[in-house]
Amino acid sequence: MDEKIKVGIIGAGGYGGCGAVELLHSHPHVEISALIDKQDVGKPISDIYPHLTGFCDLPVMAPDDPECPDDLQVVFFSTPDGVGQKEAPLWLKRGSKVIDYSGDFRFNTEEIYREYASRIGRVEAHASPELLPLSVYGLTELHRDEISSSNLVGNPGCFAVSCILGLCPALSSGLIEPEGIICDAKTGVSGAGKSPNPAFHYPARYEAMNAYKISGHQHVFEIERELSLVAKRDIRITFTPHVVPLCRGILSTIYAHLREGVNLKTVEDAYRSFYEHDIFVRVFGPDRPQASIDVRGSNFCNISLNVDDRTGRLIVISLVDNLVKGQAGSAVQNMNVMLGVEETAGLLHPGIYP
Amino acid sequence: MDEKIKVGIIGAGGYGGCGAVELLHSHPHVEISALIDKQDVGKPISDIYPHLTGFCDLPVMAPDDPECPDDLQVVFFSTPDGVGQKEAPLWLKRGSKVIDYSGDFRFNTEEIYREYASRIGRVEAHASPELLPLSVYGLTELHRDEISSSNLVGNPGCFAVSCILGLCPALSSGLIEPEGIICDAKTGVSGAGKSPNPAFHYPARYEAMNAYKISGHQHVFEIERELSLVAKRDIRITFTPHVVPLCRGILSTIYAHLREGVNLKTVEDAYRSFYEHDIFVRVFGPDRPQASIDVRGSNFCNISLNVDDRTGRLIVISLVDNLVKGQAGSAVQNMNVMLGVEETAGLLHPGIYP
Amino acid sequence: MDEKIKVGIIGAGGYGGCGAVELLHSHPHVEISALIDKQDVGKPISDIYPHLTGFCDLPVMAPDDPECPDDLQVVFFSTPDGVGQKEAPLWLKRGSKVIDYSGDFRFNTEEIYREYASRIGRVEAHASPELLPLSVYGLTELHRDEISSSNLVGNPGCFAVSCILGLCPALSSGLIEPEGIICDAKTGVSGAGKSPNPAFHYPARYEAMNAYKISGHQHVFEIERELSLVAKRDIRITFTPHVVPLCRGILSTIYAHLREGVNLKTVEDAYRSFYEHDIFVRVFGPDRPQASIDVRGSNFCNISLNVDDRTGRLIVISLVDNLVKGQAGSAVQNMNVMLGVEETAGLLHPGIYP
Amino acid sequence: MDEKIKVGIIGAGGYGGCGAVELLHSHPHVEISALIDKQDVGKPISDIYPHLTGFCDLPVMAPDDPECPDDLQVVFFSTPDGVGQKEAPLWLKRGSKVIDYSGDFRFNTEEIYREYASRIGRVEAHASPELLPLSVYGLTELHRDEISSSNLVGNPGCFAVSCILGLCPALSSGLIEPEGIICDAKTGVSGAGKSPNPAFHYPARYEAMNAYKISGHQHVFEIERELSLVAKRDIRITFTPHVVPLCRGILSTIYAHLREGVNLKTVEDAYRSFYEHDIFVRVFGPDRPQASIDVRGSNFCNISLNVDDRTGRLIVISLVDNLVKGQAGSAVQNMNVMLGVEETAGLLHPGIYP
Repeated sequence: MDEKIKVGIIGAGGYGGCGAVELLHSHPHVEISALIDKQDVGKPISDIYPHLTGFCDLPVMAPDDPECPDDLQVVFFSTPDGVGQKEAPLWLKRGSKVIDYSGDFRFNTEEIYREYASRIGRVEAHASPELLPLSVYGLTELHRDEISSSNLVGNPGCFAVSCILGLCPALSSGLIEPEGIICDAKTGVSGAGKSPNPAFHYPARYEAMNAYKISGHQHVFEIERELSLVAKRDIRITFTPHVVPLCRGILSTIYAHLREGVNLKTVEDAYRSFYEHDIFVRVFGPDRPQASIDVRGSNFCNISLNVDDRTGRLIVISLVDNLVKGQAGSAVQNMNVMLGVEETAGLLHPGIYP
Repeated sequence: MDEKIKVGIIGAGGYGGCGAVELLHSHPHVEISALIDKQDVGKPISDIYPHLTGFCDLPVMAPDDPECPDDLQVVFFSTPDGVGQKEAPLWLKRGSKVIDYSGDFRFNTEEIYREYASRIGRVEAHASPELLPLSVYGLTELHRDEISSSNLVGNPGCFAVSCILGLCPALSSGLIEPEGIICDAKTGVSGAGKSPNPAFHYPARYEAMNAYKISGHQHVFEIERELSLVAKRDIRITFTPHVVPLCRGILSTIYAHLREGVNLKTVEDAYRSFYEHDIFVRVFGPDRPQASIDVRGSNFCNISLNVDDRTGRLIVISLVDNLVKGQAGSAVQNMNVMLGVEETAGLLHPGIYP
Repeated sequence: MDEKIKVGIIGAGGYGGCGAVELLHSHPHVEISALIDKQDVGKPISDIYPHLTGFCDLPVMAPDDPECPDDLQVVFFSTPDGVGQKEAPLWLKRGSKVIDYSGDFRFNTEEIYREYASRIGRVEAHASPELLPLSVYGLTELHRDEISSSNLVGNPGCFAVSCILGLCPALSSGLIEPEGIICDAKTGVSGAGKSPNPAFHYPARYEAMNAYKISGHQHVFEIERELSLVAKRDIRITFTPHVVPLCRGILSTIYAHLREGVNLKTVEDAYRSFYEHDIFVRVFGPDRPQASIDVRGSNFCNISLNVDDRTGRLIVISLVDNLVKGQAGSAVQNMNVMLGVEETAGLLHPGIYP
Repeated sequence: MDEKIKVGIIGAGGYGGCGAVELLHSHPHVEISALIDKQDVGKPISDIYPHLTGFCDLPVMAPDDPECPDDLQVVFFSTPDGVGQKEAPLWLKRGSKVIDYSGDFRFNTEEIYREYASRIGRVEAHASPELLPLSVYGLTELHRDEISSSNLVGNPGCFAVSCILGLCPALSSGLIEPEGIICDAKTGVSGAGKSPNPAFHYPARYEAMNAYKISGHQHVFEIERELSLVAKRDIRITFTPHVVPLCRGILSTIYAHLREGVNLKTVEDAYRSFYEHDIFVRVFGPDRPQASIDVRGSNFCNISLNVDDRTGRLIVISLVDNLVKGQAGSAVQNMNVMLGVEETAGLLHPGIYP
């Protein structure tokens, strides 16, 4: 590929935009052509994120800046719910491929979108309902083919990535009972984004953990939808998110009843086979316990499998970095698939330790 | 009470010993008469823990120091498994009341002790099996009467305190199905004690969370024993401990199936009624979410109750400070009950924030 | 003392108010009679700070609430600059003793106040200039007598407490050159207060340290004033504050040139003698290095003394908990002195470890 | 360059070895051919550092493994003091280029080495004194030419990198008085390496900061030697290291008296000119304050310049990641210079935020 593909990031000033710049500035096939945000207009992105100095010094443009290039081949919406659904049509008309980080394009019908939206307090109807049936859910490992032929991808929620990847093989192979599944998820604080908030003020958080939105988190819908697709029946789960005092990482502890006769070996085989061609999913047995730091800064999802013989339960630990595989990394992975370049382009970093 | 009761702490140099000193130095009815440990012999405790300077400056004595007072009325064993079972008989003979922090006296039969011990890699038989039937499990809220007439208390495990207090009212009132209970517990790092360890080295831990001993943690036995007692039938649970990067605090997220017809109101009423006379247990509804920092440094257990209507599950969040209600605080509470003084003596501190 | 003295806290909802409640709820001579704030009016303080549940459940009153008792014997202004100077006159007229946490009453002339105020961006003239000559600077160790006969105390800045206590004995005894003094101070994040702020958002701070207000911090004035008083000549210092990712604690590293012939022994003697009657100041030699955690949660200032023979420098490490000795603890200590009760009342807590 | 240069890492299991693997696995001109350590022999490096899974899975070899390749073109000694001085001769004889992380080759005479060694408690004489005059101090920015023609480089200490880079331009241009320089340095905990230690145990450290080795840290020698070289006269400094609770980063606050007539503009010009050709040093004025997180995970040294007009002092804030520019990054930068490839190869990463 000789010429680089032009990419624009809307909402560039947030963590999701920063993450995309970190991955794209050295991407072999694309170049960052526009950074768009409502805040810090005119400032170089490296003034907002000084570590980018010398790597990307593009200034932030206002969304309505007439100088903004209109020939972007890919547009990331790293924006809150409600933005992409309004602005995506324009970019799609211009021929751009669109990847939206929010829940705007994760659902294919207005009905399920409405249910989702109610959870986050949105009452307005979807602004572009005609696009919903065209959008594809951007969990690459499950929808690679549809993504490759789509122009509009709804990037998955960070919790959803870890829970869905952690459960799909078991459901797909019928190893577990479809009822009574529990996802107990723990996230680092960066999942809450860049805006200061009393709950994430350093003194309030450095020594505090808590559950929140108990039985009411909006990610439950996309998890149940994907699990139902794979299980070929309706799946309903109990999902409890927690915040713990670290920055990056989601650890989901997933509990399910094993079907009779299923043992650890069967489970390990099923998972390894399911993810045979998925470089970003690594499967481990109980002898190789994993920690969130093992995926920090990388696009990997580490899954460790355990069986509790006393109670007949499968216990899956599924780990991702919420800002990479849980957000910008998945977005870049989807972009690669949409563009037909190698899926791993720009993503083969192990992260740093410690 | 005119004269103060003499207390000795064996294993004074660890976190459990330090916690006891913090609570006892200003206790209205007792005085610390001996600090005993194998390490740092001869050093004032305030050299080991400089914050105690001026509050308690007693030197650490060796366990076999002939100067050690033999008329201690209360002896805390803040020692690892295996110490109390060897040394308690001597102190009991001298007329001391003994409170042991380890698993040495949490079980009443050799058989269940052996099962417990196998989980922590102990192969030796119990050194004082004749004491097992005499010991009382030191979860004050459940065994106050027996504790008050006992000379030998096995202080509960930190995870066990949070899980048992979080589940007992529901089981006792028959509000939940006795099968399929899950306890997903998260602990701060101080639960691992004072000895340095690769897994708790600051750089390895500040940004890392992980599950461990999945389906194999030794606290599961005391939890199941207590729950079975209350439920009047055999209870088996799934228990998964996690370590997260904070210092103090256990948050247990407990899942159980509600029996038909049981709603949030019934649950709240049952819990409030169950703990009506227990000042150190606070019950909250879903409108008052709690965080671990709300019990940090105090002897309280905060319980918040939630019902997931979509799946018919009770979700209980049970919070304690693992070093206070989960260890030294419970020990002091038990001591108060054993001595017949007010149960709250020395324990009415709210902790500090932030 | 039979009847308890009535105390009110204005600005009760911030960290400084919370700290005062933590110290006063169990104070032997006073009772908290009113908690006043502009935010969270009507809420029990224990809704804002759940750890206080059962210890202090008073509701927050609005500043202009007609129900507010007007017979408070002591009023704490735990408020930002500009509030106390407006409202103190009313309370003084009512006969209350007033302790203000801000810079409003730390200076005795309008001129120096103006210079101070310019550093924090205040342009208005002082609202009660007639009170300035009557106010006393509330560093108890240095101004005990004046405080005991005053009705208006300006509580010192947190950095100032550590730097002044760390330097006074050396200057008072003429052990160091009065020129070229450097105070390199490091503070935990709670010093910035309770309001969320991008710089103190957990993800932005957990792994970040920085200097700020280099050569421009407002505390330099009170430090220089106090040092000049003690040295009986004009003292000018270089003061650089830093924020590091912990919650509580100030560590000031103080550098000064030793006068010829002065050695470590002379220095240690001078410091111990200077603070002979000051229970809350502990002096240590180089053999007893101290860390911020050794004063966390307590009203102590730990000072460790070191001499660099290669360069002839005195290096003093001065440690306080910014929220206790650096704020609420000093305020309570001042109150005790103003009321003529024992100076340590309510303050003899060692803090908790770890 | 067609064939890749073979590199071996001795001491691969520590943080310094891990850091080298992180930088070299994707280096365009070299390949990692041998990982050598005394611990974890036989284990893939990705078992020790799971984030490297798939990026580098070489097994660790024992130092005396006969299978160890003897044709390594570059050997990193990521080992404690005392190892490189014994084993480097063998590798140099084989024609390898050697880069040693410890103090073994930072000094050119036995005399100064002995003084250094005494600070770290070593009493043995240097094992290869004949190599000392041949070794080059590996601060690339100052010794690029000598490094390019050397086979033996003593990589600089982490504190030294930040202090030397922060001071050299001022001394070289005669902008500051050569006397009375103070370096107040703060480091994250990873600087202490991978071995657990009571002082770096998470509970003991998460809320603790302290100074250590006051006026006695061994890095002072290399700092003074380099500064003296640049200043062309003897320089003696006061150096105080501190540990604060974060993982990566050194912030050195450097104080020096400005010579008369020197102002901020002169200083900024001198620094920018001094580092004109040094891509890894970034110079900022007081309007662009920097934090340690801005260099985390990268090979950059960020320097911010400030002048305190009240006291005539230059205050330089110099920031590095102690594990990159302070260790493995400098080593790779030196390797690139020694090999004659582009100095930035493998090093152009911005790090990740937050």
